[in-house]
Amino acid sequence: MPGVMPPTIEWAGDRVRLIDQRRLPGELVMVDAVTIDELCELIVTMAVRGAPALGVAGAMGIALASVRGDDLHAAAEKLISTRPTAANLAWGVRRALAARDPVAEAVDVAQEDVAVNRAIGRHGVSVVPQDARILTHCNAGGLACVGYGTAIGVIRAAHDSGRSPSVWVDETRPARQGARLTAWELDRLGIPCTVVADALAASLMAGGEVDLVVVGADRIAANGDVANKVGTYGVAIAARHHGIPFYVAAPRSTFDPSCPSGDRIPIERRDPAELGDVPPGVAVDNRAFDVTPADLVTAYITEDGVSTTPSG
Amino acid sequence: MPGVMPPTIEWAGDRVRLIDQRRLPGELVMVDAVTIDELCELIVTMAVRGAPALGVAGAMGIALASVRGDDLHAAAEKLISTRPTAANLAWGVRRALAARDPVAEAVDVAQEDVAVNRAIGRHGVSVVPQDARILTHCNAGGLACVGYGTAIGVIRAAHDSGRSPSVWVDETRPARQGARLTAWELDRLGIPCTVVADALAASLMAGGEVDLVVVGADRIAANGDVANKVGTYGVAIAARHHGIPFYVAAPRSTFDPSCPSGDRIPIERRDPAELGDVPPGVAVDNRAFDVTPADLVTAYITEDGVSTTPSG
Repeated sequence: MPGVMPPTIEWAGDRVRLIDQRRLPGELVMVDAVTIDELCELIVTMAVRGAPALGVAGAMGIALASVRGDDLHAAAEKLISTRPTAANLAWGVRRALAARDPVAEAVDVAQEDVAVNRAIGRHGVSVVPQDARILTHCNAGGLACVGYGTAIGVIRAAHDSGRSPSVWVDETRPARQGARLTAWELDRLGIPCTVVADALAASLMAGGEVDLVVVGADRIAANGDVANKVGTYGVAIAARHHGIPFYVAAPRSTFDPSCPSGDRIPIERRDPAELGDVPPGVAVDNRAFDVTPADLVTAYITEDGVSTTPSG
Repeated sequence: MPGVMPPTIEWAGDRVRLIDQRRLPGELVMVDAVTIDELCELIVTMAVRGAPALGVAGAMGIALASVRGDDLHAAAEKLISTRPTAANLAWGVRRALAARDPVAEAVDVAQEDVAVNRAIGRHGVSVVPQDARILTHCNAGGLACVGYGTAIGVIRAAHDSGRSPSVWVDETRPARQGARLTAWELDRLGIPCTVVADALAASLMAGGEVDLVVVGADRIAANGDVANKVGTYGVAIAARHHGIPFYVAAPRSTFDPSCPSGDRIPIERRDPAELGDVPPGVAVDNRAFDVTPADLVTAYITEDGVSTTPSG
C-alpha cells in the first residue's frame, strides 16, 4: 500500500507548495510557487485544481503577496481571474485579504478544509446504502481539496464505515480528472473502481448498475443551481430519467449567495487544444463547466448535514 | 477545396481496398486486404468501421474468400465475429454467401450503398429547418458507408438544398470518431462544425443551441430500439429532457427483424487500452455501444422515408 498523502496544497514558510497534478498518475511530485505569477500559472495549467483547493490557493496567494510586499489588491484580481467559475477561489482570496495576518489566515483556511471534508463525509454516509455502486464525475477527492475530499470524502467515509462501496469513475474529458486523479485516489484507498468513458454513464444506469451519483461543485447559486465540471448536467438528467439519486457534496464556501441562479455563473472556456487533435481549421468549443438546475439535485451534502435545499 | 473522395471501401480486382481511417484526419491513404485475416484485422482495428461500411466489408470478405478458394462458411464466421453489434456485417456476409457470384454481389452491395444513402438524405431534408443547429455523435458519414453517409447524408442533403445547417460534433470517446472523422468530412464539405466533448451536449441543449439530433445506428431491433456508439443513449435522454427531436438515420440493412428488442443486441466490449492511460491495476469498462429505447426516437430516416415506427 502507498504511504500517507501529502497535503494537496500547503504553506511552506515563504512559498506555496502543492502536488503537481499535471504529472499524476505517473508520479507524485511537489512543485513550489514563490511568486503570484508562478501560482497563477500553476492554477491556469491545473497543477492545482478543484474548488476547495482553489479556495486555499486564493488565500495562500494573498499570503504570498503579503510576505513579498506585493500589492494585495492587484494580486487578488490576478488570482480571481485565473478560474472564473469556482466560487471558492474568490472566497479564499477575500478571507486572506480581510485578515490582519494573511499567512495565518491562509493556514487556517487550509486546516479547516480537511475538517470540513471529514464532516461532509460523516454526514454523507447516511445516503450510501450497503454495497452501493456509486457513479462520480471529475475529481472531488483529496486532490481537489487539501485532503480527504468532498464527493470522494463521502465515498471513503462509507468505505471506512464498512458499507463496501464501489465506484464508476467517469473519465471526464477533456482533462481526464476522473481517469487520472479519481481512479488514482480510490485505488490508493483500496476502494474498488472502474473507469468508463463519460458517454457510458447513462447506459450503466439503464442496466441497473448505478445506485447513486455523488459529485462535487465549483459554485452553487442561491437558488441551488450547481456549476460543476462539464458533463455533470448530463449525468444529472440521466440520473433523474432512471430514478437514481443525485447528490452534490461541497463545503459552504462553494455556495455563493451573491449569485441568484445558475445562468449568472460565469462558465470558463479553456484552450481548445485540451480536446486533442482535430482537423486543421475546425472549431472546438471547450467550455469547462456546466450548470445543473437545483430541481435535479436530490440533496446537498455539506459540513452542516444533508439537505434538500441549498440553504441547509 | 479538397478533391473527390475515394470510396471508403471498394473491390479492387482480387482484393479489398479501403481508406485507412486509423490515419485520419492526418492523412488520407488506402490500405488493401488480400486475405480474410488481413480484412478481419482491418475491421477489428477500425481501419474500416461504421455499420453500412461493415456490411460492404462483410460481402467483400466473402468475395475475397471465393476468389481465393477459402472455405466460405469459415470466412463468414470469422468476419461476423469481428464486430458483434453491427447488424449490417452479418447482412452483407449473408448476401454474398447466398449469391451465385459473390464478387458481383459484393460490388452490388457497395453500389447500392451510396444510392441508399442519397435516398436517406433526400427524405431527411424534410426534418431539417432552415439554419438548423444539428448535434451528431460518432461518425455516420461517408466514411461509415461507401460514401455520402446516413446521418451526415441528411446534413449534407440539407446543406445542398440551401438550409445552411451547422453541426455540433461530439468528440466520441474513446476512439474519437467525431473529432477525427465527422469533423474532417464536414470540413471538406464546407459545412460549419464545432467539435465538443461528449459531456457538453446536454449543456448545449439547455442553452437553446441545438435544434435537432441526428445519429446513425449499428443495429435496430424489431421494436425500434437502436444500438449505436456509446453515448448515443445519453444524448437521446438529454434531447427528450429538452424537447429536442432525436432522429436515427440508417439503411434498412441495419434493421434486424430477428432481434426482438434492444436488450437482445450484443454489445461489443473493446480493448480497455483505447481509453488511454489509467493508473496501473485500475479497471476500465470499454463497452463500445449502448441502446436507445424506441420511445426516445422521434423518427427513423431510411431509404423508404421518414417514419415514427421502425417498420416504416
